[in-house]
Amino acid sequence: MKNEQKWNRLKQQIRFIVEIDKVKNIFRQTYLADAGRRENDAEHSWHIALMAYLLQEHAEEPVDVSKVMTMVLIHDLVEIDAGDTYAYDEAGAKTKREREEAGADRLFGLLPEDQGQYFRELWEEFEAYETAEAKYAHLLDNFQPLLLNDAADGISWKEHQVKKSQVYKRNEKIEETSEIIWRKMQEIIQMHIDRGNIEEI
Amino acid sequence: MKNEQKWNRLKQQIRFIVEIDKVKNIFRQTYLADAGRRENDAEHSWHIALMAYLLQEHAEEPVDVSKVMTMVLIHDLVEIDAGDTYAYDEAGAKTKREREEAGADRLFGLLPEDQGQYFRELWEEFEAYETAEAKYAHLLDNFQPLLLNDAADGISWKEHQVKKSQVYKRNEKIEETSEIIWRKMQEIIQMHIDRGNIEEI
Repeated sequence: MKNEQKWNRLKQQIRFIVEIDKVKNIFRQTYLADAGRRENDAEHSWHIALMAYLLQEHAEEPVDVSKVMTMVLIHDLVEIDAGDTYAYDEAGAKTKREREEAGADRLFGLLPEDQGQYFRELWEEFEAYETAEAKYAHLLDNFQPLLLNDAADGISWKEHQVKKSQVYKRNEKIEETSEIIWRKMQEIIQMHIDRGNIEEI
Repeated sequence: MKNEQKWNRLKQQIRFIVEIDKVKNIFRQTYLADAGRRENDAEHSWHIALMAYLLQEHAEEPVDVSKVMTMVLIHDLVEIDAGDTYAYDEAGAKTKREREEAGADRLFGLLPEDQGQYFRELWEEFEAYETAEAKYAHLLDNFQPLLLNDAADGISWKEHQVKKSQVYKRNEKIEETSEIIWRKMQEIIQMHIDRGNIEEI
């Protein structure tokens, strides 16, 4: 590759790297474990990328961990334009896809074409929720806020009056992705039903 | 592996996952690109893990990107116990190693032994700054705050009256890791010397 071409690629990459800094200001409904404040998308993505390494032994199907890491590191970037849609916000869910696709076009379009295309494909794969990697990434994406909510005494479930049926619906593919993690999740959910933090309906 | 053993490993992994949430409250001297607030270790680690993927083509030696990602995702965890030591804090640097080793013992000790040992080794490899992966991880660790500081008009250089000689000393291995990125870094540094944000001594 010519020097000028390398230099141009580096410029595009830097443009993207600085632009995605904005995801540190996209705040989620989940609180930190100490309940001190809400967490943002960058922190959440860091956490689940590390979990991708740690929990791989519990996946029913073998997963390409390196691919999952990249997938989860970028999975929330579209929220820079589309904003965070809470897991149990049904009105927001209706327009979510359209808002996020526009975000993906703009953001991944900043990169050199090959890299932008790869990130777009990874994000689409995550959204389609079909491959072993996408299923494992979703497991991490759901398990992490459950652990934080548990540590923070169910604060965001209480704030949003979340129902058991909603939690089970959201996690319907977890059992086929990891039987043991689904068992742990059910244990935690039941404890918070018993404490009145999740409504038993 | 027996079910009970798998269950015990999962418990240890969860303990670690919840404990490291604290790194989201370890704030650095670097500001976000919009200069709105300082960034924390989790956000910084997320950013450079993603950069590890994007900038690999610029490394002089081939690197195992997946290993670098895991390395940078965990490289600042010891600061949960040791606190953040600013790059140009010479007094703090003297006790840094001892404080960080105690942190590594405690934190990585929470994990199943094989995983705790792997993270410890990765952290030691990063600190030793010798392998291609460790050199590339350090490049990312230094380049990211430079890009943010540049976007934020040199705010943290000004706050700490940082000198050109300090920046050059800190980055003395960057050129051998990536010639083109070192060229870009020098360009940025010179611009901030010209603007009076970095002292020309």
